[in-house]
Amino acid sequence: MRANRLRELCANGGAAINGWVQIPSGFAAEVMASQPWDSLTIDMQHGPVDYQAALAMLQAMSHKDPTPTVRVPWNEPGIIMKCLDAGAFGIICPMVNTAEQAEQFVKTCRYPPKGFRSFGPTRAMLYAGADYPAHANDSVLTFAMIETEEAVDNLDGILDTDGLDGVYIGPADLCQSYGAAERVDLKEPAMVAILDKILDGCKKRNLICGIHTMDPNYARHCVEKGYQFVTIASDGRLLAGACQAAIKVARGETGEGDGAGGPY
Amino acid sequence: MRANRLRELCANGGAAINGWVQIPSGFAAEVMASQPWDSLTIDMQHGPVDYQAALAMLQAMSHKDPTPTVRVPWNEPGIIMKCLDAGAFGIICPMVNTAEQAEQFVKTCRYPPKGFRSFGPTRAMLYAGADYPAHANDSVLTFAMIETEEAVDNLDGILDTDGLDGVYIGPADLCQSYGAAERVDLKEPAMVAILDKILDGCKKRNLICGIHTMDPNYARHCVEKGYQFVTIASDGRLLAGACQAAIKVARGETGEGDGAGGPY
Amino acid sequence: MRANRLRELCANGGAAINGWVQIPSGFAAEVMASQPWDSLTIDMQHGPVDYQAALAMLQAMSHKDPTPTVRVPWNEPGIIMKCLDAGAFGIICPMVNTAEQAEQFVKTCRYPPKGFRSFGPTRAMLYAGADYPAHANDSVLTFAMIETEEAVDNLDGILDTDGLDGVYIGPADLCQSYGAAERVDLKEPAMVAILDKILDGCKKRNLICGIHTMDPNYARHCVEKGYQFVTIASDGRLLAGACQAAIKVARGETGEGDGAGGPY
Amino acid sequence: MRANRLRELCANGGAAINGWVQIPSGFAAEVMASQPWDSLTIDMQHGPVDYQAALAMLQAMSHKDPTPTVRVPWNEPGIIMKCLDAGAFGIICPMVNTAEQAEQFVKTCRYPPKGFRSFGPTRAMLYAGADYPAHANDSVLTFAMIETEEAVDNLDGILDTDGLDGVYIGPADLCQSYGAAERVDLKEPAMVAILDKILDGCKKRNLICGIHTMDPNYARHCVEKGYQFVTIASDGRLLAGACQAAIKVARGETGEGDGAGGPY
Amino acid sequence: MRANRLRELCANGGAAINGWVQIPSGFAAEVMASQPWDSLTIDMQHGPVDYQAALAMLQAMSHKDPTPTVRVPWNEPGIIMKCLDAGAFGIICPMVNTAEQAEQFVKTCRYPPKGFRSFGPTRAMLYAGADYPAHANDSVLTFAMIETEEAVDNLDGILDTDGLDGVYIGPADLCQSYGAAERVDLKEPAMVAILDKILDGCKKRNLICGIHTMDPNYARHCVEKGYQFVTIASDGRLLAGACQAAIKVARGETGEGDGAGGPY
Amino acid sequence: MRANRLRELCANGGAAINGWVQIPSGFAAEVMASQPWDSLTIDMQHGPVDYQAALAMLQAMSHKDPTPTVRVPWNEPGIIMKCLDAGAFGIICPMVNTAEQAEQFVKTCRYPPKGFRSFGPTRAMLYAGADYPAHANDSVLTFAMIETEEAVDNLDGILDTDGLDGVYIGPADLCQSYGAAERVDLKEPAMVAILDKILDGCKKRNLICGIHTMDPNYARHCVEKGYQFVTIASDGRLLAGACQAAIKVARGETGEGDGAGGPY
Repeated sequence: MRANRLRELCANGGAAINGWVQIPSGFAAEVMASQPWDSLTIDMQHGPVDYQAALAMLQAMSHKDPTPTVRVPWNEPGIIMKCLDAGAFGIICPMVNTAEQAEQFVKTCRYPPKGFRSFGPTRAMLYAGADYPAHANDSVLTFAMIETEEAVDNLDGILDTDGLDGVYIGPADLCQSYGAAERVDLKEPAMVAILDKILDGCKKRNLICGIHTMDPNYARHCVEKGYQFVTIASDGRLLAGACQAAIKVARGETGEGDGAGGPY
Repeated sequence: MRANRLRELCANGGAAINGWVQIPSGFAAEVMASQPWDSLTIDMQHGPVDYQAALAMLQAMSHKDPTPTVRVPWNEPGIIMKCLDAGAFGIICPMVNTAEQAEQFVKTCRYPPKGFRSFGPTRAMLYAGADYPAHANDSVLTFAMIETEEAVDNLDGILDTDGLDGVYIGPADLCQSYGAAERVDLKEPAMVAILDKILDGCKKRNLICGIHTMDPNYARHCVEKGYQFVTIASDGRLLAGACQAAIKVARGETGEGDGAGGPY
Repeated sequence: MRANRLRELCANGGAAINGWVQIPSGFAAEVMASQPWDSLTIDMQHGPVDYQAALAMLQAMSHKDPTPTVRVPWNEPGIIMKCLDAGAFGIICPMVNTAEQAEQFVKTCRYPPKGFRSFGPTRAMLYAGADYPAHANDSVLTFAMIETEEAVDNLDGILDTDGLDGVYIGPADLCQSYGAAERVDLKEPAMVAILDKILDGCKKRNLICGIHTMDPNYARHCVEKGYQFVTIASDGRLLAGACQAAIKVARGETGEGDGAGGPY
Repeated sequence: MRANRLRELCANGGAAINGWVQIPSGFAAEVMASQPWDSLTIDMQHGPVDYQAALAMLQAMSHKDPTPTVRVPWNEPGIIMKCLDAGAFGIICPMVNTAEQAEQFVKTCRYPPKGFRSFGPTRAMLYAGADYPAHANDSVLTFAMIETEEAVDNLDGILDTDGLDGVYIGPADLCQSYGAAERVDLKEPAMVAILDKILDGCKKRNLICGIHTMDPNYARHCVEKGYQFVTIASDGRLLAGACQAAIKVARGETGEGDGAGGPY
Repeated sequence: MRANRLRELCANGGAAINGWVQIPSGFAAEVMASQPWDSLTIDMQHGPVDYQAALAMLQAMSHKDPTPTVRVPWNEPGIIMKCLDAGAFGIICPMVNTAEQAEQFVKTCRYPPKGFRSFGPTRAMLYAGADYPAHANDSVLTFAMIETEEAVDNLDGILDTDGLDGVYIGPADLCQSYGAAERVDLKEPAMVAILDKILDGCKKRNLICGIHTMDPNYARHCVEKGYQFVTIASDGRLLAGACQAAIKVARGETGEGDGAGGPY
Repeated sequence: MRANRLRELCANGGAAINGWVQIPSGFAAEVMASQPWDSLTIDMQHGPVDYQAALAMLQAMSHKDPTPTVRVPWNEPGIIMKCLDAGAFGIICPMVNTAEQAEQFVKTCRYPPKGFRSFGPTRAMLYAGADYPAHANDSVLTFAMIETEEAVDNLDGILDTDGLDGVYIGPADLCQSYGAAERVDLKEPAMVAILDKILDGCKKRNLICGIHTMDPNYARHCVEKGYQFVTIASDGRLLAGACQAAIKVARGETGEGDGAGGPY
């Protein structure tokens, strides 16, 4: 089976710089996959990507190195299994708020006896090799999103889920859940304490802790803290930021882009 | 009819900063159209955009300000007229090397008696209004690409073409045609002399002179020289450059992105 | 944030004439959006529209006035949130039969603390503006479909749902649920009494009452009765009816079209 | 081979009422094909339909009776042959202005020795049967568009083209070519005389004379005059007209739709 | 209503040889539908087909004889009803493990009073006729997949579900569920005993028993045993096997294809 | 630059067994690319593949070994250059009948000074590497189709075209051109003599001689004669043949498939 480089990188103690792909286009995905990301996540939840687009994007990315993962729209077996069968090497599941939801999610991703994933890795075998069925349970990564107060309250139960490989923190939803305006790149002590609690819970269990960021400097900071799966902005926002910066220079306007994704 | 802001900007002596759209996706086009470009060009020649993608992109851009233009794959009436009927407010035609080709191109874009454009602006009326037919001949912009030695040799004949609104210089092809490696942002005196000759020919006839650039600083330099339609990189390269810059920062690597499009 | 004209119209006591869009095509959606409808509903339940088609349709409609809404296939958070993130300004949810289902639906459409909508209005911000997050909860419309006997039995509980903006009556399903053949434009006293009960329940609570009709004369009658969101047929049936009428005239056959949608 | 009902109808002296399909959607095409048209034309010239859309539309129409034809974007062998291979039973070629162009067009549609159509009716055999190759030359219909003054001047040469089955008059382009504003449903004596000349030329040679109309009453008038292939409006305009009529009724506004296609 | 030939064939005691369609392409579906299959199943669970692809495939197959069925991704009302509205004449539902799940599935497929299918057979009426609503409940086939130990334990309850037309055995999942490696074409006595139990349960209740196979010889064996709905491989695997066999011959390599689907 | 394995194989005296891809689907292309073909040709002439489909197919094939080539619809610069920019490593051009046409074709495929290919290998660089521009002229293969009597008459002129890499024989068109019914796998002495003449002309000039076949035994015979680029059937016909063979076995019918493509 084709190696899951994201799993290997994290298992070796490394940290993955992850690209976030929202543009529903095989070509854009191929451009993203040609950059030095360690891994890529096709966002089927908030981005305008549906399954057919995700399939084309997974195909277009397959001759490049970054490990392909998918954030699914919701904790539903139908779409999770379809994404796995399409060759995703990792699944990020939004809004995992309880241990029961975490267990349901993980079992969706695993063949019996570890779970109830249905057999039929139609494209996964084309991508990963004919021995995919024998190795998928040990290779495919499962990330539960921690993005609500309820999830933080149930943190230990979630992290103790058998077969869970890691978590992915959604700072914007987390802020909203705690009654604050949505933000990322959190620096408020109260929120940082929550992030630290999640990070520590992962470290203790040798789970991968992932997080969504906007500013690459904040991303670097996260890597230094021990996050092993760190996303920077998204293709759409990186494109927007690059346009804004280039237009300013071309117009001779003062002000500088900061290398991060811009507002739309 | 909806105003052709690109035409107005240039008529008032301004210079348009133009975005180049190669990602075949309505969403990516909408992101591009939400940035402060003056105009956008959907590239149907070298980018992976075909007509159906271009249509979706034109639709997605229609609620935003940048003026939509299309670079067609070749000087062929079928596709040029289809793009106009889809609502393109300007056409860039590649490889116009003779006055005859220029005349053929311009007449393709104009209804009789100025040309032989066939009547049926199906979507153009949805985009621009029911009075599009009465105004299209005076509104739609025609740009002939000057990108070969032959075109430079025939420059006066091309520029004298009745109804031509401007030219668009393709530096990479122009270099190749003169026996050099393809490049953009040309600074070699011999090539600059050729560019100046084209620019001067346009100024003399009050035509819009456009050019393709990579570095936004070079683009600003072009505006200062009198180019009125200046493109910076493409969505794909701007995205690639933004990724490379952000990844470097996140990894703590030295080196800085320069705000321009990166190599793939 | 771009104004939600449908909400404003109803808040001012007006009634919206709503178009129903089932043809999965950006061009057809653009044609529909160019007609004098107050609002449009993209039907993802019974029409052949899926998410990718809906996205293209929402994009193509964005430069026109009718307010875009979506009828989702089912009361599922994954697809409801994706439609909101794509820029729908209203959601019609089928088969809301209990107060619990109504609450689940409404909370899916609202950011915390009013609900559990996940944050990521990727395209909604492109369509509605950067301040969309701050206003979405007060702008996006939520319509629960009342289309079963069970829903009528639970009417008060449903209508009392905090944050629900209105209901949408599906007469065909309602008839079936009561053991009759499916029909619309109901005139039987027993069914009219049920409709009146729903309408009155809405009026009492200042909720928008919507209904699906086929005959525009019936639609007018509904407006006069106080319905504020009245749909006429669908794009497919309007097209079919127009074809049938035109063909009859061209063939010199007697009989007249009635301006309404025809059978397929 | 599946019968070409349009050819049979005309050969028997009948007149076809033809539907015009511009919405790039298999579902819309299926709705159109379910109406009592004799034939349908997928418009690849001015409508937003490209080849991939046309293919899906031809497939969706195949279980219905109306004979499928295609108006190609231009007189180019590549796209004409692709449409034939996709199963079109008739081709309408725009802007045929000379006998040479007519001959080029007809030969593109015919296998040797009658022409130079390349062999490979991939989908045509699925649609029409395994014996398609043996019968295609005698079955597929070729219509040259007469829509310029030049074409009228060359009328006899065009009509004498060996293998040409008929012509199709484009009134809007014809008006423009004669220096008038584009219109259809022509009633001016000077233009009617030109139409009559074309119609008479066809009748004399037993060719099918077709025409594009907007008002079904005018279409009936054309049938009475001897046109055998009469189009009414397009799906997009019929839909627009039906919407406008229904909305007026629902709003209680005076004024009546006329059963024909409306302006956008 | 168009006859459901699969239902008729089985009611008459016949056995259907069923094709399995995973290639998301209308053209491939049309090729499949042109072969002498009795029925076809579009696989939306493990194949790369989503709803929009399935719709195009159903349309392309509609002028051919094989009865169209769909395997849905999961037991969810939204997607099941959408597939029925798109014209599927049979639904195969994966992972039906309890009588409750079977009842939920069957009721999703039936209009009241037999179930809670929502009314709106938009395309189904185009495909099957205007009288589809009156006959759908008696025509559309419902197959519950038996593919887990839990389902076998609950077999009687599942088979007794009112309105269930048959079952479909998924041997690969069944093996996994019993702790064995996934396989099809099962010959191990223990597994054969389970298959026999299911088959006998169906026979006793006059239900259709279906099964997925790879080797056409095994399929023949199943028909002889009394299975009435027997699938052979999939389009993708049949294509792969045919390529491998042809390449071997062309290269002069020994070894023979066996007419069945090959590994990828 | 990624190696052109087809060029290398032929340069080393080997013969490529080539797959023919007509199903417009990335997944089907990926299945084809996973079989042991030496090279694959996406057929944009007679198959239902257009540019957007071809792009998705090229992307899906990129992580597999077979060299991707494209048969373009016609000898037109617009589409040929678009296919090269999409990453095709070889172009097969139909209906090359004269030396002038051959020269036009070859120059379309080569950058100056060898031709007039316009610069912009947008996706080709993603597929083949950043050094593609420097090597493309020496790597990309050009095949002129010899498929008419006129081409045979002009054979020497065509074969002497500077930069032409080989020819591809279309037997069906060739037969038609000589007044016979279309066939492949030609065995009639008169036709074989023509084939031999073409093959000898290639051998003499060290050009690759390719041919389209249906029967893999005939293909093997061609390899033995010295053809170096031999196609067997197409994906659609191989699939059809495999279905027919499997169905026969499952039904217990006599008769055997022959491993080759079947009629539709």
